[in-house]
Amino acid sequence: MAAEIVNPRSDSENRTGHTEQGDGAEPLDSFDPAFALHRGGKMAVQATVPIRDKDDLSLAYTPGVAKVCSAIAEQPDLVHDYTWKSQVVAVVTDGTAVLGLGDIGPEASLPVMEGKAILFKQFGGVDAVPIALACTDVDEIIETVVRLAPSFGGVNLEDISAPRCFEIEKRLQERLDIPVFHDDQHGTAVVTLAALRNAARLSGRALGDLRAVISGAGAAGIAIAKMLIEAGIGDVAVADRRGVVSRDRGDLTPIKTELASFTNKAGISGSLEVALSGADVFIGVSGGTVPEPAVASMAEGAFVFAMANPNPEVHPEIAHKYAAVVATGRSDFPNQINNVLAFPGIFAGALQVRASRITEGMKLAAAEALASVVGDDLAADYVIPSPFDERVAPAVTAAVAAAARAEGVARR
Amino acid sequence: MAAEIVNPRSDSENRTGHTEQGDGAEPLDSFDPAFALHRGGKMAVQATVPIRDKDDLSLAYTPGVAKVCSAIAEQPDLVHDYTWKSQVVAVVTDGTAVLGLGDIGPEASLPVMEGKAILFKQFGGVDAVPIALACTDVDEIIETVVRLAPSFGGVNLEDISAPRCFEIEKRLQERLDIPVFHDDQHGTAVVTLAALRNAARLSGRALGDLRAVISGAGAAGIAIAKMLIEAGIGDVAVADRRGVVSRDRGDLTPIKTELASFTNKAGISGSLEVALSGADVFIGVSGGTVPEPAVASMAEGAFVFAMANPNPEVHPEIAHKYAAVVATGRSDFPNQINNVLAFPGIFAGALQVRASRITEGMKLAAAEALASVVGDDLAADYVIPSPFDERVAPAVTAAVAAAARAEGVARR
Repeated sequence: MAAEIVNPRSDSENRTGHTEQGDGAEPLDSFDPAFALHRGGKMAVQATVPIRDKDDLSLAYTPGVAKVCSAIAEQPDLVHDYTWKSQVVAVVTDGTAVLGLGDIGPEASLPVMEGKAILFKQFGGVDAVPIALACTDVDEIIETVVRLAPSFGGVNLEDISAPRCFEIEKRLQERLDIPVFHDDQHGTAVVTLAALRNAARLSGRALGDLRAVISGAGAAGIAIAKMLIEAGIGDVAVADRRGVVSRDRGDLTPIKTELASFTNKAGISGSLEVALSGADVFIGVSGGTVPEPAVASMAEGAFVFAMANPNPEVHPEIAHKYAAVVATGRSDFPNQINNVLAFPGIFAGALQVRASRITEGMKLAAAEALASVVGDDLAADYVIPSPFDERVAPAVTAAVAAAARAEGVARR
Repeated sequence: MAAEIVNPRSDSENRTGHTEQGDGAEPLDSFDPAFALHRGGKMAVQATVPIRDKDDLSLAYTPGVAKVCSAIAEQPDLVHDYTWKSQVVAVVTDGTAVLGLGDIGPEASLPVMEGKAILFKQFGGVDAVPIALACTDVDEIIETVVRLAPSFGGVNLEDISAPRCFEIEKRLQERLDIPVFHDDQHGTAVVTLAALRNAARLSGRALGDLRAVISGAGAAGIAIAKMLIEAGIGDVAVADRRGVVSRDRGDLTPIKTELASFTNKAGISGSLEVALSGADVFIGVSGGTVPEPAVASMAEGAFVFAMANPNPEVHPEIAHKYAAVVATGRSDFPNQINNVLAFPGIFAGALQVRASRITEGMKLAAAEALASVVGDDLAADYVIPSPFDERVAPAVTAAVAAAARAEGVARR
């Protein structure tokens, strides 16, 4: 639904209508830097061609535009050359799983979608438009995005709750010939794998020798598990709130039944703590807290990636007592697992070659490229580059574009 | 449908993938300035906040964005203050009535929608996003736009064929609390009325004394007829290809039956030429050609607004032989009736006060303001300002905002 706004506002001098507080609720802290920064939104549209006079106007609009339209009508692929389609991504959400806030609806999700859009631009040179949908039904979301697709070169699904997000992504990709990518799944998985590759390299370990435990069987946890298996991890078990997802459990959803079929080779049953005993890798995408004794029970030289925000499942101070490599989702600790390391370059690479989809091979290539940026500077507190490392996006872009060509999904 | 693109392209150095020609068709003229200008599209997204370091990132994105999302979830109207919603318009089409080209589909319509978007920005300071839909069913278009609405402060419908455009606009406005405006109807009508007011002022005539004939009973023609009546025109008759729309015709669609009920007080039956005999005003939005004798048969001191592009229904050279005031849709003749004089300011004014809709009063105010810009410089070759007159958009914006308050649809 569109927001119901019934209280008239007093006038304001500025164009975007900033007010210090809303009506009928707690005053906002007008000195809070987050609110100050968000006033009027975080993005704008700009023309990339001049409209200084009637000659410019007659080229950019009527009558000049007509011949460009006619050319595209005759040769549809010219839309990529003569419009912004191939450089703009729709950032689509239904507002059901926003950050740690849950189902807050489309309007309240917009600050995140705008943030995502400007990160696309800043880090990947990719234009992006927030599209927060007033529907949550899977079929309706799919139909809506299919109808929008002519205007966009790709679709980044964002903050859509599991298990709906899996079906939406899968069915959308089947129907569209532009990339559909659920960043909460695959972006997180790509960055996690990159960090894990470097942690393994630092420790002289092969991925195939590692047993990993993932806390959290939502979108991110399942995608990470799949990606680690694609990459050749020795074993990976995924735990939800009821313990390790295993074939002997009678309470599994269809998605988790599938998950149980290709994870947990060791056949662990029971709690997360049981699984962690002797494990080489902990990956937290759950938001809970792992008791210190469970961390202590992990294998010598373990890796702890506690990625929940703002509170990591294992505080880095505790993790460092037992683990060889510690990563979090926070920017104020070393080794931040941050999706912004992946999605801008992944889309930039896919759009560059007009890929029809983003394949497993493209994601693995992105992780490889991201890991390689660390190079010889590899250290326990540097297994993943900073989001502000300017080498990251070009490396990921090039690797993804090359992989798209190798996998036969590139169209140029 | 999304464009089917099966021919792989060779690589290109530049990011946006310009090629001199498509595959398997006539080469494009690479020196044509319209194609040159359109390469890579005409617009981009930009961040309006800095992301220079991790502190910026933690405000614009996680974790700082979470408190903004939470605030909006609690007080929905804050979405207008802390996102770009209230300054961004969706330019929505289904590609069925694009310029004079007709039903060319969504992808081929994109150059026009991008053009519209950058005109919104250039002339009204309004951000706009092209949304070309892969559906033409009225219900599907309505449902899709309703689902998109949380992300936008307004909807500009564009190049949707009649009579579907009437129902789509009406039903969308009933369901949404943001302005829905079909520019092909109302933008054209506003600018036409402004020019007519000034032509009447120049001639010392009152609108109530004038009899107008409109050639073309599509979206623009019907909207102009309605607006002229709102403004107090003496009489107006609308002709389609079969002649004047009159109550005695047996071949009228429901829309034209309604049109017949409030136009043509004179009860004219027959051809456009019959209606023009003795008429004071000709308004062409049809694209046909009016024979010179019919122009000659108009009343002394007539006004001829021949707005078809690129070929006016009456060439200005012929019109000037008989008419006191001549206007066209072309930029290379004086008195260009150009929608860009209206829609940027209309939306800017509506968004400024967060109007829930654009009322008849707001449109009339826009026409009044637009006409008033001409002021004392009024002359036969200057009844409407230039699109590049910088006084236009501020005047229209202020008038529309004031009218929205007066009509009780403003929310701030």
